[in-house]
This record gives sequence, C-alpha cells and structure tokens, in this order.
Amino acid sequence: MKYKYDKITIIGMGLMGGSLGRILIKNNIAKEVIGCGRNINRLKIALKKGAATSVTIDLEKAVNESQIIIVSLPVMLIPEYVKKILTFVNKNCCITDMGSVKEIIVNEIAKFDKERLFIGSHPMVGSEKAGIENIKDDLFKGGTCIITPMKNSNHQKIKFLTSFWKDVGMRVIKMTPKQHDKYISGVSHFPHLVSFALINCQKENILKRKEIIGQGFKDATRIAASNEEIWTDIFIANKKNLIKDIDTYLKTLRNLKNLIKKDKVGKIKNEIKNAKKLRGQIQ
Amino acid sequence: MKYKYDKITIIGMGLMGGSLGRILIKNNIAKEVIGCGRNINRLKIALKKGAATSVTIDLEKAVNESQIIIVSLPVMLIPEYVKKILTFVNKNCCITDMGSVKEIIVNEIAKFDKERLFIGSHPMVGSEKAGIENIKDDLFKGGTCIITPMKNSNHQKIKFLTSFWKDVGMRVIKMTPKQHDKYISGVSHFPHLVSFALINCQKENILKRKEIIGQGFKDATRIAASNEEIWTDIFIANKKNLIKDIDTYLKTLRNLKNLIKKDKVGKIKNEIKNAKKLRGQIQ
Repeated sequence: MKYKYDKITIIGMGLMGGSLGRILIKNNIAKEVIGCGRNINRLKIALKKGAATSVTIDLEKAVNESQIIIVSLPVMLIPEYVKKILTFVNKNCCITDMGSVKEIIVNEIAKFDKERLFIGSHPMVGSEKAGIENIKDDLFKGGTCIITPMKNSNHQKIKFLTSFWKDVGMRVIKMTPKQHDKYISGVSHFPHLVSFALINCQKENILKRKEIIGQGFKDATRIAASNEEIWTDIFIANKKNLIKDIDTYLKTLRNLKNLIKKDKVGKIKNEIKNAKKLRGQIQ
Repeated sequence: MKYKYDKITIIGMGLMGGSLGRILIKNNIAKEVIGCGRNINRLKIALKKGAATSVTIDLEKAVNESQIIIVSLPVMLIPEYVKKILTFVNKNCCITDMGSVKEIIVNEIAKFDKERLFIGSHPMVGSEKAGIENIKDDLFKGGTCIITPMKNSNHQKIKFLTSFWKDVGMRVIKMTPKQHDKYISGVSHFPHLVSFALINCQKENILKRKEIIGQGFKDATRIAASNEEIWTDIFIANKKNLIKDIDTYLKTLRNLKNLIKKDKVGKIKNEIKNAKKLRGQIQ
C-alpha cells in the first residue's frame, strides 16, 4: 500500500480530532496516525473506534518524526501545546490546529515559533455533539477549511497544508487571521451566543410547556446544545469581534422593538422581507 | 361513502387552508370542502391541487349550511371576516380560525358574536414556505392544536371543535387566549424576530462570504425565510408579549456581553451549560 503520509499526529482526540484520524486511516491517506491526549482511557476508546493506529500520552513520542501535527484542543490551550512540542518535532514538519479563533493563537505562537512551523487552520465543520463517542466518517467531506498563514509563513508549508486538507476532502480558502475572526464571529460565534441566550430566556416554557415547542424553535436552538468548555474559550478568544456583533444586534433589536411598539407596519414588513431575501441566498 | 362532515368551508386557501382542505378530502373526512377567497385564479389552483371540492369568491354561498368554517387568513383580517359571515351562517355551525395570536382576535369577535359561534384555534404547524403551491398532506399530522375557548363558550361546540382537530390528526390542548399568547410569543413569535434580526445583521457576510456559512447558521435562520405579511401581522397583534420577551432578551444579551468583556469564564460556562441542558429537554 502506498500512503501519501507516513506519520501524522493528532493531539486531542475529541469529535474533530477523532473524526480526522478515522478518515486518514480509512481512506489510506496516512500509514501511521498517532493519537495523543492526557487521558489514556479516552485514548483507548479512540483506538477502538479506529481513530488512531496507536495512542500515547507522551507528547515527545507522539510528535517524533511526524510530517503533520494537528493540535485539536480548545482554543486557549493551543499555543501552550504548540510551545511544548516545538522542541521535539522534525523541522520539516507542519504544525496546525483546528481552532475556531485564529488571531490570538497565531500571534501568541509567532512569539516563539521562530522557524514558522505553525500555520493556523479552521476546518469549518463540527457538531453540537462533542467527544470521541460522536465521531463521524463524513465530518470533513465537502466542508470548507480556512487556513490563515502569516506574511512570513513558508510557502512550501502553505502548499503542503493546503494539499493535506484537500486530501481529507475539504475545499481550502486563505484569509488573514484578522479577517477570519471577523467573519467567523458573524456567521458562527455570534449565532451561537444568540442561540444560548434565546433558549435561556425560555426556561419556564421549556420546563412547563414542552408540548407546544415546534420545529422552528428546535432548529433555531440546535446549536445551543454545544459544549461549554469549547464555546467559553471561543467567546473569550474572539471577544473583540463578538462584542461588536452583540452591539450591532442590540441596536437592531431595539429598532425592531420600537417599530412594533409604534405599529410601523411598512417598516416591519421591510425588515422581514430583507431577512427572507437574505435567507434565500444561502439555501 | 359515509363522511363525518357534510360540508366544511375554508376561507383563505394558502399553505394552511390548502393543506387542511386536502387532508379533509383525501382522508374522506368531509364530503364537501368549499374553498373561499378573493382571487379566483388562486382558488382554481387550490381546486386543481385537490384542496377543495369546489371554490367560490362569494362568502354567503361559501358558508351556507357549513358545519365548520375555518377562517385561514392573516391574524388582523380574521375578526372582519368572522363579522361578515355571521349573518349568513347556520347557527349550529362552529366558526374557528388558524391564527397564531388569540387574545386580540377572540376579544374583538366577542363584541359581535353574541351566539358564541366562534372558538379560536391555533394548529401549531406551518412552514416558512407560504402559499397554495407549498401545501403538504402531512402538515397537520401529529401536531398540536391549541384551542382557546372563552368562559362562556358553548360546551358542545368546544367538544365538536376538539373532535374536528383530532379527525385531522392533531393533539388538542386548551388554554385561555391570554396564556396562549404569552407562551406562543416565547417559543414562536419571539424566536422568529430573533432570527430576522440575526440574519439582517449578517448581510455583508452573506453577500460576500457565502462559502463560509455553515449548517449552524442555516438552521438558526431557517425561520427567517418566513412571509412578511403573516409575520408583521403577528408581531403587531401580539406586541404586548413580544415586547416583554424582547426586553428579557436584551437584558440576557447585555449580561453575556459583560461576562465576556470581563473574562468571567466560570459564569459564561454556566450560561452555556444551562443552555445545553435546556436544549437537551426538547430533543
């Protein structure tokens, strides 16, 4: 069997890391997929699920001679782990991550990653159901991966990383870390916050009147079932953009409230018409 | 063939009216289903789609000797149409509606409906795709219908109406119009407003960066594709509850914003945990 990669390491075997490992093995993309983490029992589940060819809690052993190392951890832990492994890795390798926030990570890592081994990635896939128990074979297939090289990132490494995500089945686009965080706040981070707030406001109805909750509410709050560790991290890491989005939203809501209060039928109709038109653009 | 009802009239042949007509005919529940509306060309489509056994723009002819008359029009038009037909109907009939707001309608109708022929209904089904073109055979099946009798509503009529919605395949629950409007604002009207506002805030991203919009955003904004006539009406008709819900939500969002601003990791985690737990209750 001819493999494109001899050895790939995934640090953090949750939903994203585990699903990635499985696809690399199942599609014969990598010969060896090392799953690394802190909890050996969780790692054993990953092994059993076919998400790694071997597992270890030893970081040095895990990354040794790997061609690609994917740090699949909550955003705020990524720089620390990249720092830890930098002394162990082969200088030809490429280190990346799968975090939803980029600027804060990339800037932090740039302080110590003098040889520019790290390039940020954000495969825009996932699920409200976190953990190795929920890994999926088709998680990455057909999705978009944003990579966020810096001005002085190595061109060979950018090409190598792009090709890697394509091998996994993704479309790859490039953005600066700053652009990435602005856009992703708007279409992902902020909508999660909206959804968390919406469902928390309806606690009484949910507990007392479950039978009257329809599909619209269920769809609008599906992402509210997301993991609190991952999302607290994201909110803190992308707070600058998120707060801007909250402020715009507060203004929009206050405006709608006033229109309703004052029976401004024509203007309300326009707002809804605009919403319908925009939603029609993303079928 | 033995039918449970000889003649049923539906005024307004949109998604809801049309789907109801089809089910009444298809399941042999009613012998005659009269579709009534203002636009004869639209009515002819309804006839062609099997949503009525005959159609007319003549209100008097439409309701004459009907056992049940369902006014399936935007909320703000319902009282006016009930008033119009009251002089034509058989006094043994039951008049109802399918509007999403109840208190304002029921109170208005009580002013002239001296014989209490009207009892409000809200079958909690629907779709963001309005119109006779989108009618569905299974729209009502398995759904919940809230009926909102008043203190002096006729008991026989309440039983008759309950039995009618059960015939259509729905579970029936009773509430006061006031209770109904409060609950439904929370789990339906207000979430629509949230969704309209969310998508309108993301206009730039949607127009310029469609490729980065994922399933979470799509789900959270599915209901934003709803009809502007229907929803403007609902917002105005249920403004009292809606404004309360907006105010609670604004408070929740401002609180979240402050927690994020001040890095209150523990408290943010709790908010998300609560959201996840609540969402888990309505799988």
